Amino acid sequence: MAGTNDPSPFAYEGLDRTIHEKARLGVLTSLAANPKGLSFSDLKKLCGLTDGNLSRHIQVLQEAGLVSVTKTFDGARPLTTCRMTPEGRRRFIDYLAVLEQVVRDAAKAAEAGGTLREIKPTTA
Amino acid sequence: MAGTNDPSPFAYEGLDRTIHEKARLGVLTSLAANPKGLSFSDLKKLCGLTDGNLSRHIQVLQEAGLVSVTKTFDGARPLTTCRMTPEGRRRFIDYLAVLEQVVRDAAKAAEAGGTLREIKPTTA
Repeated sequence: MAGTNDPSPFAYEGLDRTIHEKARLGVLTSLAANPKGLSFSDLKKLCGLTDGNLSRHIQVLQEAGLVSVTKTFDGARPLTTCRMTPEGRRRFIDYLAVLEQVVRDAAKAAEAGGTLREIKPTTA
Repeated sequence: MAGTNDPSPFAYEGLDRTIHEKARLGVLTSLAANPKGLSFSDLKKLCGLTDGNLSRHIQVLQEAGLVSVTKTFDGARPLTTCRMTPEGRRRFIDYLAVLEQVVRDAAKAAEAGGTLREIKPTTA
């Protein structure tokens, strides 16, 4: 939550929808942990996605400049490797800071049950 | 991330899409902090949403049983109040536990930059 003067403390502008989508969040977390890149088939397993779903999400991430894809050969077998771009890593870290704020706000809200500290806009 | 034997540690099955969507996450966090409920217009301000957007998301949350809506009158003015249901609170807390895990995994991945501990499936 931003300063108490923020009229929309729960708008979470920084929660980039390209990153926030559940499957893409898994893909990006996997890639953040593996900067040398992961093969398409490793990613599929780590994130529990089908071929079609992973392809679609990788395309979205690639178009957004967050992920790069290289196609090589492992012997005769085509090998697709996905990597997080430097911009992707920057935006992922920015996103994470907002997500941490969401978790703090939500945990506080859930614990207090609102009885201790109700949060309402200051003007009617 | 679940145990190391989990072949899909980044699938995040528990990341309920009904709750995870950015605008709805803001709405639910606001309602969690205000168990007596919030008026439609307070929610709109707190979450920085338009009438149309808030209506649409409230409907999704209502259909999922997470939120209840009551319509009364404040003098002659109609007053719409939204509240989190007990089931909504339970599911929100379950969701939060998964979100906290995502933040821990992602922060670890982003910090290590993958050079310290690469996470790959154990089988080829």
